[in-house]
Amino acid sequence: MSIAAKYYPNEPEQPVVKVTQIPGPESKKAIESLGKVFDSRPVYFVADYEKSNGNYIADVDGNVYLDLYAQIASIALGYNNPALIEAAKSPEMIRAIVERPALGNFPGKDLEGILKNLLKVAPKGQDHIWSGLSGADANELAFKAAFMWYQGQKRGYNTAWTAEENESTMKNQAPGSPDLAVISFKRAFHGRLFASASVTASKPVHKIDLPSFKWPKAEFPAYKYPLEANAEYNKAEDARCLEIVENIIKTWQVPVAALIIEPVQSEGGDNHASAEFFQGLRDVTLKHGVVFIVDEVQTGVGATGSFWAHEHFNITPPPDLVTFSKKFQSAGYWFHNPEFIPAAPYRQFNTWCGDPARMILAGAIAKEIVDNDLVSKAKEVGDYLYGKLEELQAKYPRHLQNLRGKGRATFIAWDLESAEKRNEFLYRLKQNGVNCGGCAEVSVRLRPTLTFEKKHVDIFVSVVAKVLADFV
Amino acid sequence: MSIAAKYYPNEPEQPVVKVTQIPGPESKKAIESLGKVFDSRPVYFVADYEKSNGNYIADVDGNVYLDLYAQIASIALGYNNPALIEAAKSPEMIRAIVERPALGNFPGKDLEGILKNLLKVAPKGQDHIWSGLSGADANELAFKAAFMWYQGQKRGYNTAWTAEENESTMKNQAPGSPDLAVISFKRAFHGRLFASASVTASKPVHKIDLPSFKWPKAEFPAYKYPLEANAEYNKAEDARCLEIVENIIKTWQVPVAALIIEPVQSEGGDNHASAEFFQGLRDVTLKHGVVFIVDEVQTGVGATGSFWAHEHFNITPPPDLVTFSKKFQSAGYWFHNPEFIPAAPYRQFNTWCGDPARMILAGAIAKEIVDNDLVSKAKEVGDYLYGKLEELQAKYPRHLQNLRGKGRATFIAWDLESAEKRNEFLYRLKQNGVNCGGCAEVSVRLRPTLTFEKKHVDIFVSVVAKVLADFV
Repeated sequence: MSIAAKYYPNEPEQPVVKVTQIPGPESKKAIESLGKVFDSRPVYFVADYEKSNGNYIADVDGNVYLDLYAQIASIALGYNNPALIEAAKSPEMIRAIVERPALGNFPGKDLEGILKNLLKVAPKGQDHIWSGLSGADANELAFKAAFMWYQGQKRGYNTAWTAEENESTMKNQAPGSPDLAVISFKRAFHGRLFASASVTASKPVHKIDLPSFKWPKAEFPAYKYPLEANAEYNKAEDARCLEIVENIIKTWQVPVAALIIEPVQSEGGDNHASAEFFQGLRDVTLKHGVVFIVDEVQTGVGATGSFWAHEHFNITPPPDLVTFSKKFQSAGYWFHNPEFIPAAPYRQFNTWCGDPARMILAGAIAKEIVDNDLVSKAKEVGDYLYGKLEELQAKYPRHLQNLRGKGRATFIAWDLESAEKRNEFLYRLKQNGVNCGGCAEVSVRLRPTLTFEKKHVDIFVSVVAKVLADFV
Repeated sequence: MSIAAKYYPNEPEQPVVKVTQIPGPESKKAIESLGKVFDSRPVYFVADYEKSNGNYIADVDGNVYLDLYAQIASIALGYNNPALIEAAKSPEMIRAIVERPALGNFPGKDLEGILKNLLKVAPKGQDHIWSGLSGADANELAFKAAFMWYQGQKRGYNTAWTAEENESTMKNQAPGSPDLAVISFKRAFHGRLFASASVTASKPVHKIDLPSFKWPKAEFPAYKYPLEANAEYNKAEDARCLEIVENIIKTWQVPVAALIIEPVQSEGGDNHASAEFFQGLRDVTLKHGVVFIVDEVQTGVGATGSFWAHEHFNITPPPDLVTFSKKFQSAGYWFHNPEFIPAAPYRQFNTWCGDPARMILAGAIAKEIVDNDLVSKAKEVGDYLYGKLEELQAKYPRHLQNLRGKGRATFIAWDLESAEKRNEFLYRLKQNGVNCGGCAEVSVRLRPTLTFEKKHVDIFVSVVAKVLADFV
């Protein structure tokens, strides 16, 4: 039995589009009304989640779209999943909603079990967790852990702070508030708070007008596609980029305490890099005592054909900190070295220290993925999808440039000729009942759920073919 | 009928303490086990939320404490509140848990109603909301809005960014990433992410080892108590502190774009300031074009005898941005000037843009507070409590110094002689069945829920009296 059939016996057979322009008239009215209290300008359409089912999202005009965007890559199992509804109705969940504890001071007796459910799917080599609330929050909490560890290495893990440190930090001055940097990559996206925006470098709109830490950006490899035909070029590109990273670490005006990277740069254009490149980063960070942080916020939870995307690379030793959010619903970071827990308590701390309601949901998601082997299934479906897209590419090479994500399950993207054409293409997909997202300026990114199957691939591919048939 | 009796027919009559040391043996075991996967060093005891009821929190040793700490001031209505349980079981909540939308792109049709429920209790003068996930997140989102507005004033609200701005921001350099400051106050607490930690200045443990923005700290008035007997001194203190604020704004090395302040500095010691001081800040921020942000994360939602604490001050015009979290369960900021929505969309934006599950709960909390007039009731209970504490103060002046929060409902605090004595006092309260928190170094802060009544006051005061009877 297919997983979609198991979860979603009433999933629509195909998209339904009842309007010619999207948003339709009812969505438009709702967007205008919502706009009086909320910034509704980025709204594509107003959804009807009661009527959404499986891989299909419904809107208030009665349209039903096959969803390959899935809430900006943050829905793992489709809409109205019965196992998650059951988790949402459980007494444990109701308690987590109504009695939200300050987890650091007054955890409930069920917290340990909740965390252990999450740890069952920790990345290879990781056995601790610290919980946060969003991707940006997870990355900034990871930076905190990294900076505390880095300074702890210098002064001694158990060494008390000096009076000078205590006094200077209250004035935001060194040595208590040291000048340290996190290195990241051009085209990276790690969030939009102040430290996370300082390592983000995909689009000006994320950053303009915000004061930022003056942290450096290295270059992420820019491969030529198809990979097989450009192996030598791409290998040289790895070496070039690794050299830039090491040079920055050695010469930056303040010490570089940490490096953060996505296994696939997602918001920045679905830019892939090789296992050799990631191992090279591990080597160079170890050599220079730099904390190695992998941001799995968008790539994690199965969509690349491995529970965590960086597991494809077999990085040895494993990364120091791995952050997560989005499809996991809960957020935070994984780690294995207990020295990433500072010697003094109350340093990595805040009122809530995460949200047990979202952790319970994450546990339920993890269980469904494991029990139903959804990662392997996504890989199979992704390979099938990639093959179909290669066929389309042969027919429409101008509109399917740099097709990428082979062997990465459904984590697939390609480029169009221009931003205008990409946007027009995405709009026409919607008009034909497919909700799909872009990334960077000219790319289409596919981010279906883990319940996306071959039958959904066929519908998607036929809509793409239909749109491309008269796409200029 | 009393509100506690209405909500909590089975609320315990009094605390139960079954152990001599806290944490008890079962808590100790659970803390040790939890410690293998989570930093459990700050845990006071492991709670049993199933058995917690109303104003009483239970632990795994069978102890039942009268709770005046309420999850670091973040539970509004007590434990296992039937109205909130009903909200948690609603189809709307289950949908919000299972189908977490990217609210900015694909809001559900119920979002407008959810937001309008929150706006019913917006601070006087505010009619817009932007939602976040925690107090630190709310403050940083407010900073983003403030910086965008401030730069928009300079370049023109509708003016496009220059090529130089677009290019420089990708390198974290001005003019795209401008050097701007937020002014805050010594002893302030606004969170522990990087920008929020840069405005926090209550304890080194919140800040040590984190790179910070080199933002200035003004002085928060340090009043002499009782206020009536020190009116002249305190008035001069207001003037002194206002002058410092204005001097910093005029002379700081980078432009000061925003000012953030708590209506009562909470974590930093329950430091109060007068309505005149707050009006003075409004005047000086207006004069210099500085965004005025009031942080109501801990003070909001009724505990001071007004739904939002700064409403006591009748600030005119109202603050530009008011942040909230904790007892509201949802987080974000209120505002009224539509220019705090940037001219271009996608600037104040992220994947989730808040959590509708927590917003639904906030709406239910707000409804209960309004329908049952809980703010007035808190005021009445607080006045009663303050009177009882004044009586104890007369008897034990050494252990009840600087009693403060008169006329601020249950938002009451006082000082002991030293940190050691404060900590010993709090521990002995626990041994006698009262869970209570501290703030700053030597203060006790009371943060009961809005269902705390005179009968609970009597129990609390009798335990304090018992502890103080042989307190050296």
